[in-house]
Amino acid sequence: MPELRKDPVTGRWVIISTERRKRPSDFRLERPALVGTGVCPLCVGREDLTPPEVLAYRQNGGAPNSPNWDLRVVPNKFPALQVEGGLDREAEGMFDRMNGIGAHEVIIETPDHGKTLASMSEPEIERVLWAFRERVLDLKQDRRFRYILIFKNHGAAAGASLEHTHSQLIALPVVPDFVREEVEGARRHFATKERCVFCDIVHQEIDTGRRVIQENADIVALSPYAPRFPFETWLLPRRHAARFEDAPRHEYEGLARLLKAVLMRVNRALESPPYNLIIHSSPFSEETTDFYHWHLELMPKLTKVAGFEWGTGFYINPTSPEEATRVLRAVPV
Amino acid sequence: MPELRKDPVTGRWVIISTERRKRPSDFRLERPALVGTGVCPLCVGREDLTPPEVLAYRQNGGAPNSPNWDLRVVPNKFPALQVEGGLDREAEGMFDRMNGIGAHEVIIETPDHGKTLASMSEPEIERVLWAFRERVLDLKQDRRFRYILIFKNHGAAAGASLEHTHSQLIALPVVPDFVREEVEGARRHFATKERCVFCDIVHQEIDTGRRVIQENADIVALSPYAPRFPFETWLLPRRHAARFEDAPRHEYEGLARLLKAVLMRVNRALESPPYNLIIHSSPFSEETTDFYHWHLELMPKLTKVAGFEWGTGFYINPTSPEEATRVLRAVPV
Repeated sequence: MPELRKDPVTGRWVIISTERRKRPSDFRLERPALVGTGVCPLCVGREDLTPPEVLAYRQNGGAPNSPNWDLRVVPNKFPALQVEGGLDREAEGMFDRMNGIGAHEVIIETPDHGKTLASMSEPEIERVLWAFRERVLDLKQDRRFRYILIFKNHGAAAGASLEHTHSQLIALPVVPDFVREEVEGARRHFATKERCVFCDIVHQEIDTGRRVIQENADIVALSPYAPRFPFETWLLPRRHAARFEDAPRHEYEGLARLLKAVLMRVNRALESPPYNLIIHSSPFSEETTDFYHWHLELMPKLTKVAGFEWGTGFYINPTSPEEATRVLRAVPV
Repeated sequence: MPELRKDPVTGRWVIISTERRKRPSDFRLERPALVGTGVCPLCVGREDLTPPEVLAYRQNGGAPNSPNWDLRVVPNKFPALQVEGGLDREAEGMFDRMNGIGAHEVIIETPDHGKTLASMSEPEIERVLWAFRERVLDLKQDRRFRYILIFKNHGAAAGASLEHTHSQLIALPVVPDFVREEVEGARRHFATKERCVFCDIVHQEIDTGRRVIQENADIVALSPYAPRFPFETWLLPRRHAARFEDAPRHEYEGLARLLKAVLMRVNRALESPPYNLIIHSSPFSEETTDFYHWHLELMPKLTKVAGFEWGTGFYINPTSPEEATRVLRAVPV
């Protein structure tokens, strides 16, 4: 059973995922190369290599776990958290732990092993967003869960172990620190200004145009003012809304179009770098409607995080967001 | 001039280090291989390849920046922050920035390119600790600085760009988030218990012995209860003290001995992995004497940090600290 443990000094939780435990000898080298096409468990016809699907889109119908799907969602075969059981909060002397209860799912974005999120069509990307929504709406009915992170690791250097394009989600029984910091920061801003801080950012960036990479009727892609990483890019809906899963259809359309455009810019400017992509949305069962604002964060993996960052939480970024904006805007599309 | 910029949502500061700016084409690949012996700017006889030294130990005397040194400290040739100037705090609309004022120094631990911190003798390691102390005592007189992080990146995968063994320090005009979280957590613990949380950890771990790797009269090496990374190891002085730079001589001796022993265990158990090492000590000009407790954190670089961690601040660790303790204890030394 995986465990959640709390650092007694900072209150930071970690997942000790003993089911994924490696022997010391397994640590000699960094993760091996990506699992490629020959043995890919996410490809069509290998549905028996994944746990049974929890969601699938099949245009012409068909039995669960049969081929001819357009998108599948399956539990992760090597989950960081376990879905069955109670939290069983307990102490070990001064320390605090609970069972590592949660969901860990894989969204197989396309049956085509040769595609990437950037090379998928806009309707295909939109379909992925709808799958995110459906899974969140289903999982948030489970009252043990307080938060769901949707994320994507693209490329081995960004932590992917399978080449076939996929996203993941992890449902957690606690609200994670970075989300807590955003929610509390947005709450403080609202308390003094009665405005959403993300709306203020979008308005100021559109006014000055200094860091806007591209926009459409629904979504704005910008380089944040204080980015941790070179070419970090945020995509925010223009319309104020706390929850990704409650967005209207046209926002998913708009997000799919802009995400594809931004990924193509990043790929052309930086030669298809590895990247991480995450969606931040409101924690469940918290009243954040007025002040929180869902968004997507794209982090190309171009620099190494080292001792200074691990010791401080302070990031050294060698590329200003103004420079990143200039470079990404200049890409011919 | 580098800049410090504050994220308007979370309040997190980042360093935009434009002097280190790379062109987009420089990002195509991760950092290249380590600079090796042939052209090493940290080797004896190449003193003119570094900025002039700010500290050196020479057993037989000798002019500054001449050969025959045992240890040298020099300003980083490519500093993340700049030492001259004022902070010039200012706004850009709703955003906050200041000049990237700080010090960034390199501690060249030995003239011998073939040595590592683990293979240096105990007196040689102790000399490095004394150099840390001297530089901190000097730099903290500069009232612009609120914190100094001492850190070491060992191996290319841990962010090192030079092979020759060295540590670094960065003096900052703000107290970084991770230090702030530790200080505030320790303050809260003291407020309810009137005890130091780190002292409580040391006592409980010594009592149970569950996660103690090795100890001596001055220092205890343990696997923390909620480690972010596999084989993360903390070295704490038994004696309560907030500041590394005020330690008595025998604690540097004890730390040097235990650090060498722990590094040798890690190297043998995990085949000399890359690692990051940091020292956490009290911020300057804050009264933390009663409740903060300096310590050293060693983080072997064995796993990749990916989208889930970047999105949540939550770490998935596949090795429990009990398992790490068992493996490291079992190493014959």
